[in-house]
Amino acid sequence: MGEQMRVIGIDPGLRNLGWGVIEVAGSRLSHIANGIIHAQGDDLGTRLLSLFDALTAVMAAHGPDAAAVEQTFVNKDGAGTLKLGQARGIAMLVPAQAGIAVGEYAPNSVKKAVVGVGHADKTQIAHMVRHQLPGVHLAGADAADALAIAICHAHHLQSAGRLQAAIRGAA
Amino acid sequence: MGEQMRVIGIDPGLRNLGWGVIEVAGSRLSHIANGIIHAQGDDLGTRLLSLFDALTAVMAAHGPDAAAVEQTFVNKDGAGTLKLGQARGIAMLVPAQAGIAVGEYAPNSVKKAVVGVGHADKTQIAHMVRHQLPGVHLAGADAADALAIAICHAHHLQSAGRLQAAIRGAA
Repeated sequence: MGEQMRVIGIDPGLRNLGWGVIEVAGSRLSHIANGIIHAQGDDLGTRLLSLFDALTAVMAAHGPDAAAVEQTFVNKDGAGTLKLGQARGIAMLVPAQAGIAVGEYAPNSVKKAVVGVGHADKTQIAHMVRHQLPGVHLAGADAADALAIAICHAHHLQSAGRLQAAIRGAA
Repeated sequence: MGEQMRVIGIDPGLRNLGWGVIEVAGSRLSHIANGIIHAQGDDLGTRLLSLFDALTAVMAAHGPDAAAVEQTFVNKDGAGTLKLGQARGIAMLVPAQAGIAVGEYAPNSVKKAVVGVGHADKTQIAHMVRHQLPGVHLAGADAADALAIAICHAHHLQSAGRLQAAIRGAA
């Protein structure tokens, strides 16, 4: 049972930050935990701090060996992109602070890895996450997306023996 | 001499993050320190962590009572806005973690507070920062911008007795 590792997927947002932790043992995936962090506070600094503190606590509770964050969709709305960027900064910082490398995947790559096609909607993603992690209770759509990111990263690590290299690196 | 406080201004960037600390005593401003943090590392998480660690060390070294960050210019370049947002998330997080409220000012407000007009260029900003903080040695343009943000926040705090309220709040 030495060949196993935990992967956390993070779906960043300034209001709600989804997270999901899975365990990877060879080709087998199993669900550990998932949730949604709701930012608290009125001003931006306080809200970012609440995300930082809660995500740090999640990391401490579940001890992942690897992390992955979705590449944020950059749209025409500059103000929205900036807000998302600020939340994403926290999502990248917390695993780095725990000494864990953070993989980044485009939304289409995540959908392709989990559903098989790059244009799946949220319902299909949640359905396939439930299929791949039997018995999982999803905290919500953001948590399902986070688990999908973790599954995508697990597939990436499994291919080409990256899992064993990652485990050796994390040991 | 109880009526004095320290203000840190931060000019966020993913490559270089400028910072400047001033002391405000009544209507008098004086320079404490300024510098530029250069992000270290190859991957985004590591770079954000290096900004976080260095800015946390600056806060610990100079103990500001108040902080201000420039409102980021949102442009048409979505990818650039996202990068800046990630750095800005760190710039907002660190003072919040120290329990300090973070003011936000639009670039034009900063220029108007320091130079007197809203369309000043970098040379004019550096000139007026040197004028208002005699003897200051500027670490670079990003540090001059950060000091300008701190000066803008000091003016804001000085008006309408906000300084005394802020000092009482910070005491």
